[in-house]
Amino acid sequence: MASFFRLTSSLRGLTRPNVTNRVSVRSLASATGTKKAAVAAQVQYEEPNEPGPFFEQEPAGPRVATAIPGPRSKDAISDLNRVFDTRSLNMLTNYKQSYGNYIADLDGNVLLDVYAQIASIPIGYNNPALQDVARSDDMISAIINRPALGNFPQADWSDILETGILKVAPRGLNQVFTAMAGSDANETAYKAAFMWKRQQERGGPDAEFTQDEMKSAMNNLAPGAPNYSIMAFKTGFHGRLFGSLSTTRSKPIHKLDIPAFDWPQCSFPMLKYPLHEHQAENAAEEKRCLEEAEHIIKNYHNPVAAIVIEPIQSEGGDNHATPAFFQGLREITQRNNVLMIVDEVQTGVGATGKFWAHDHWNLSTPPDMVTFSKKAQTAGYYFGNAALRPNKPYRQFNTWMGDPARAILFRAIINEIERLNLVENTAVTGDYLFGGLEQLQQQYPEQFKNLRGKKQGTFIAWDHPQRDQFLLRGKSMGINIGGSGASAVRLRPMLIFQKHHADILLDRLSKMAADMQ
Amino acid sequence: MASFFRLTSSLRGLTRPNVTNRVSVRSLASATGTKKAAVAAQVQYEEPNEPGPFFEQEPAGPRVATAIPGPRSKDAISDLNRVFDTRSLNMLTNYKQSYGNYIADLDGNVLLDVYAQIASIPIGYNNPALQDVARSDDMISAIINRPALGNFPQADWSDILETGILKVAPRGLNQVFTAMAGSDANETAYKAAFMWKRQQERGGPDAEFTQDEMKSAMNNLAPGAPNYSIMAFKTGFHGRLFGSLSTTRSKPIHKLDIPAFDWPQCSFPMLKYPLHEHQAENAAEEKRCLEEAEHIIKNYHNPVAAIVIEPIQSEGGDNHATPAFFQGLREITQRNNVLMIVDEVQTGVGATGKFWAHDHWNLSTPPDMVTFSKKAQTAGYYFGNAALRPNKPYRQFNTWMGDPARAILFRAIINEIERLNLVENTAVTGDYLFGGLEQLQQQYPEQFKNLRGKKQGTFIAWDHPQRDQFLLRGKSMGINIGGSGASAVRLRPMLIFQKHHADILLDRLSKMAADMQ
Repeated sequence: MASFFRLTSSLRGLTRPNVTNRVSVRSLASATGTKKAAVAAQVQYEEPNEPGPFFEQEPAGPRVATAIPGPRSKDAISDLNRVFDTRSLNMLTNYKQSYGNYIADLDGNVLLDVYAQIASIPIGYNNPALQDVARSDDMISAIINRPALGNFPQADWSDILETGILKVAPRGLNQVFTAMAGSDANETAYKAAFMWKRQQERGGPDAEFTQDEMKSAMNNLAPGAPNYSIMAFKTGFHGRLFGSLSTTRSKPIHKLDIPAFDWPQCSFPMLKYPLHEHQAENAAEEKRCLEEAEHIIKNYHNPVAAIVIEPIQSEGGDNHATPAFFQGLREITQRNNVLMIVDEVQTGVGATGKFWAHDHWNLSTPPDMVTFSKKAQTAGYYFGNAALRPNKPYRQFNTWMGDPARAILFRAIINEIERLNLVENTAVTGDYLFGGLEQLQQQYPEQFKNLRGKKQGTFIAWDHPQRDQFLLRGKSMGINIGGSGASAVRLRPMLIFQKHHADILLDRLSKMAADMQ
Repeated sequence: MASFFRLTSSLRGLTRPNVTNRVSVRSLASATGTKKAAVAAQVQYEEPNEPGPFFEQEPAGPRVATAIPGPRSKDAISDLNRVFDTRSLNMLTNYKQSYGNYIADLDGNVLLDVYAQIASIPIGYNNPALQDVARSDDMISAIINRPALGNFPQADWSDILETGILKVAPRGLNQVFTAMAGSDANETAYKAAFMWKRQQERGGPDAEFTQDEMKSAMNNLAPGAPNYSIMAFKTGFHGRLFGSLSTTRSKPIHKLDIPAFDWPQCSFPMLKYPLHEHQAENAAEEKRCLEEAEHIIKNYHNPVAAIVIEPIQSEGGDNHATPAFFQGLREITQRNNVLMIVDEVQTGVGATGKFWAHDHWNLSTPPDMVTFSKKAQTAGYYFGNAALRPNKPYRQFNTWMGDPARAILFRAIINEIERLNLVENTAVTGDYLFGGLEQLQQQYPEQFKNLRGKKQGTFIAWDHPQRDQFLLRGKSMGINIGGSGASAVRLRPMLIFQKHHADILLDRLSKMAADMQ
């Protein structure tokens, strides 16, 4: 542990925050249904808090009271199994006892959570600022008076968008179409791309549909329902509904038995880590993939309307590419008149140390569309080009078209991210954490292979030869970690993950590696 | 109007409710952000309330203060248009001033709402019972601690399901897979059907995938991604994502430019109304469609895994079929070993005078899956057969897998439906309303053509030769109505729509028809 504490003291940027930098705890007691004292009594403080935690009442460390699942959890899981598929269950969770970075179960176990509901909790369990917003009249109205947004938007919808979702719109993109989750965010973006492409070919927004198009569309046939495609990348993940699954290429279990569109896939660069030590061969690999991408776009038998790509392939194993690769892709899409859709469902909202992961690329032209979900707690796609708004109403439409309640929550999340400077925190903490992991890698090279995510905030991963066992062992050591791809351990802490959490994580990882040596 | 009042007094079943049958108003003032007096002052009571309204404070009638949109709405719409597509906007809504069956705008207009957010508001705007639930600790936790349900379900998830969603499960279906909205509810049901079909062919749940299947699935090709299909019905609507849109056959504008699967469509019976006056020819038409359905199922080049059908085709124009038709379909699906998915997204949760519209059919075997959304305020599919649970985990999975917050809300909706006997209310009020419409039809046969929905609760429609003008005129007369298909006026009131609301509606419809005569 000593080495980590040395790193702590030498780290710049995150000094002791003053009181206004802390999350207020005034609302905690009532929301957890317990008094403060009861919460405090339940958690064993293993060591004193470091100065300056965002969550004042957060446990100082994990507590493992029983095997996981413990006896109470086992009973409850068996009960749940009667009505719900529990085979993918990881941990039956007591959310009311979870707080900040810590997730609790029914047996008194409290784990440091660096998986965060598959990368979707942004600023901590039972965040008091979010509790206040959840109690507000605006939220209550949004919950119980859910509008059909396209027809009957609420009077303050423009305000909710402008002070929330659109406030953090990626550079160059000033419009949004709201959705429910990552899959339909991507699929509505794909629909916008197909409409844009066909409209161009038809002669612009004023060109009318032909009788043949209208008739064939009703029969699911071209030209009305064109055999056009979205090009995706091997080992990418974009969701699980029929269109999004046709672009998902993560694992067979995600795709087996489900009909798919005949859409193309391009190789994603398989880079060697650490990236800076393999620059020449990585550049050659990226060049190969770029050439393949352009070849597919020019030649695929089902014309490509758009490409979709993740800044870091997440479910597929935390595969990185360099800014040069994405710059090259942007040039190729522009040269060939296809759209570039960046899927920021997992990378967006601060996790990589910038608000959007594609901010790392310094593109000369922004992507055409950027999709989001997860940590936004709402979903949709951003766009800028007015030609991406369909030429007629009711072409991009559904009953709910998103959810104002969740848009209001995202606004509150954004406010907290800004107030506490959490993107910067994630960048700084990520660098610190990465430094610690590099030391572990030196000590246990086989257990921390292909460490990746340097200068990408806390969006960090490595390969472990016995990954699933490693993750299980994590639970018994008090940390909740997820995997991705075949062998990656992926870290997806929240944006309130701080140096003192990194120290605990590094300490436990070190012990786990020693045990498994 | 006299005739309607006569009907009122002769109607059985809905007598003056006692105080416990009323919706409590204690929470209204704070949720609307105004005091009761202010609300009351804003609404002009045109006539005294009938005895026994569920919402004590509900306006006694609509109030039209300005043209719609009025000056304030126009300004706000122009503001909204900068960031949101307002071409499909119907009415910019002031939800905080909406109450019960009445929807308000920014200009002081208060309309009787028989469209109800495209049939999705179940028990009234600002329902006090729902306000209480929205304020509860459980709801607040669900809003701010949204789980990845498949991995980290909350400890009370089985309780939320069993006392909510599953409490109203259709007969014979005791399991649910939760989703976000109608489209993904249908698509996940389709996925379950494809997995079931291929598993059967593979030799059951223990048969392993072949290498060829795993490899071809990753390439979007058969056999891993099989060219199988879902059979849908002409003029049906099942959603707008790629799989659901491939089964939607409502209008070209819903489908144009979007790639679709080569899946079959069967004729839906085009019946003559009133049904009881055309029994012989309607039976012949249904027989023709049943024969076509079986022919497609036996012969379509992309094998049919399931059929999907709405009990009443809603978006497609309120097209009805008889119980005999659906019984016939059930027999055909069983005989040919394909699944029957009933899409109750719009018909479900009480609107037809039974909790599920397919309860009208008296099927000898329940449907295999029933999908729901809209008035449930959450979504998913019910199933009963254990073989519909995929044989391995992570085959039917996504990050959020629904939303406990919305499941808690549905539970509260169910409780209110039971407490106030709202399904029965809808059946009785629907019969009353239908009787009034039959009188209007006698008076204005051209403006109330093909009146349909008898004994289907308030799920009533008719054709009007100038439908869009008729709907617009409705707004100026203080009623908010929607259309469906090419020429149908569809009524989709909430479950708290009562006789005195029906009287107002009938009065306004009568005046509109007289004006347009």
